[in-house]
Amino acid sequence: MTRPSLDDFHAIVPAGGSGTRLWPLSRQSRPKFLLDLLGGGRTLLQQTWDRLEPLVGPDRVHVVTGISHTGGVREQLPDLTHLVVEPSPRDSMPAIALAAAIIAEREPEAIVGSFAADHVVEDEIVFAAAVAEAVAAARTGLLVTIGITPASPSTAFGYIEGGDVLGLAGAPTAHAVRRFVEKPDLATAQEYVASGDFSWNAGMFVVRASVLLDHLARLQPTLHDGVREIAASWHTPGRDEVLARIWPSLTKIAIDHAIAEPVSLEGGMAVVPGTFGWDDIGDFAALADVGATSTDGTIFVDADGLVISADGTTVAVVGLKDVVVAHTADAVLVTTREHSQRVKEVSVALQELGRADLR
Amino acid sequence: MTRPSLDDFHAIVPAGGSGTRLWPLSRQSRPKFLLDLLGGGRTLLQQTWDRLEPLVGPDRVHVVTGISHTGGVREQLPDLTHLVVEPSPRDSMPAIALAAAIIAEREPEAIVGSFAADHVVEDEIVFAAAVAEAVAAARTGLLVTIGITPASPSTAFGYIEGGDVLGLAGAPTAHAVRRFVEKPDLATAQEYVASGDFSWNAGMFVVRASVLLDHLARLQPTLHDGVREIAASWHTPGRDEVLARIWPSLTKIAIDHAIAEPVSLEGGMAVVPGTFGWDDIGDFAALADVGATSTDGTIFVDADGLVISADGTTVAVVGLKDVVVAHTADAVLVTTREHSQRVKEVSVALQELGRADLR
Repeated sequence: MTRPSLDDFHAIVPAGGSGTRLWPLSRQSRPKFLLDLLGGGRTLLQQTWDRLEPLVGPDRVHVVTGISHTGGVREQLPDLTHLVVEPSPRDSMPAIALAAAIIAEREPEAIVGSFAADHVVEDEIVFAAAVAEAVAAARTGLLVTIGITPASPSTAFGYIEGGDVLGLAGAPTAHAVRRFVEKPDLATAQEYVASGDFSWNAGMFVVRASVLLDHLARLQPTLHDGVREIAASWHTPGRDEVLARIWPSLTKIAIDHAIAEPVSLEGGMAVVPGTFGWDDIGDFAALADVGATSTDGTIFVDADGLVISADGTTVAVVGLKDVVVAHTADAVLVTTREHSQRVKEVSVALQELGRADLR
Repeated sequence: MTRPSLDDFHAIVPAGGSGTRLWPLSRQSRPKFLLDLLGGGRTLLQQTWDRLEPLVGPDRVHVVTGISHTGGVREQLPDLTHLVVEPSPRDSMPAIALAAAIIAEREPEAIVGSFAADHVVEDEIVFAAAVAEAVAAARTGLLVTIGITPASPSTAFGYIEGGDVLGLAGAPTAHAVRRFVEKPDLATAQEYVASGDFSWNAGMFVVRASVLLDHLARLQPTLHDGVREIAASWHTPGRDEVLARIWPSLTKIAIDHAIAEPVSLEGGMAVVPGTFGWDDIGDFAALADVGATSTDGTIFVDADGLVISADGTTVAVVGLKDVVVAHTADAVLVTTREHSQRVKEVSVALQELGRADLR
């Protein structure tokens, strides 16, 4: 893979979220991104590294994660140079903004792109081409998102409505963004997909670091000032003190709400279509859809579905269709594909039962 | 409890069968009768002892079991005097006939009663009264069964059709038996229950030992001669040699087919109604019916059913009604109440998968 046009590009990987709908495989202490959910030998975080590192090199991948996961991240990514450790979770905007501000300290004109640590991409070549277009579009000063061409009228994702083709150099497929919309109902999702104008919001944002920070200065000025102050101290002995002092005061907000939605309404956003096959594996139904298969030795008698036995215990299912069983050494989930989204409610029940240790 | 009329009565407890429909709780190496399925602190075998020992005393309970379960039986019944060890499983007739022949060696006029080791009885007082009637009826030379007054039109049991009241001394409720019928379909079962003439065949037979052996001599002469020869050697140094030589040649047959069905057609049987609440816990649906409850700490989210976690692993069920989950350290079953009977098919699948170790 050549990368002549990406020399100023840095990848930011927010590695957060525990994935409560994939419990008990995922836990607060063992979040989704640290798991090899597809059984291919690489965790979701490692797969994210595997598709970004060839584009930017190991020195321009920046992982942002919580303090309790730094050990897991370092272990899984031995070649990682830049690890930003959040003292506490403040959602995606502070995480991405701090990484961008740290990069901008040394390379003010750098382009940054954010890519979640726990998503799945099928075709890395097509992914790389979309990133290259997004970087080209971002060089014009736009906030660029890679919007996933919908594979179905999913109600699990937010959507991005595209407008006219922008005709940008190096980004022939980039369209203007009309608006972001929240997760729709099924009828609305069907309209969106039928229109051909909508893509899924996968949280992939590509933008010049200085542009991102300028937007932030306008829209979330205290958050901007906070991350700038932390970034200024980043390569000094005062880093820990400044981080500990300022981080807890940063506004807890997602990048979509803080920047993407308002900037899209101002006409400052572009969307590059992503046709590389993508999923955020939000639940067990999605995990089955991206090709996860039942553990060897699972017994189905007049039954089918997805049985993952992470600890190798033999599971037999009799007479249930579309079952989902996730087995670990200390906890077991039994549900069906249809109820996959409700698995997050187990976390609440565990709390009520005084078994927060299993969350 | 008084027992003036039971001085000549011996209880025979065939402890066999692995209970493949209660897998993985029950295994070939850990059969149903050795399990505390109801969680009350006593196994089914111990509960059987607990209701028979007060009637006959510890010296007149005779347990017949397979060679691989002698350790479990002795451990669970420390006061047991008479243990008959089968070198191999030959079904219920050889087991009961051998125990009866051993008893008859010393007490030819003894009354014997057979009671499976893995059944549940709710009311032990009512049970004892039924046994007392059956013993009184058996003194007249009849082969007597205690037939369970049906709680429902179950298709899981064989039925016994009763005839006229016999008017026997000490057995006012004893009726003649017209016939035994195999497990019926639902419509037939409903007719049976509506008629009031049918009871469930619970395999409880009470008979004078000499009468049993005389029937056997007529109907299964080689089997009769075999158990007689073993019994004659029982209290001699030659027991092991004789048992090892003869036992494998004994006809493998159930007492129902060998004796009860033909004798009933000859008019030689009586039935005493059993109204004490009974179940053979044939599957997980039956286990739920007899009051088994889900393990503490089980999480149901929009779900219900029976979850037994024998090893304490936390199980969460989301969105499934009438689920059945049985969890052990090395194997898990997931099914529904409706499919409880099909759990036995897992055993076949395990064999095919080369996991006979889990059967």
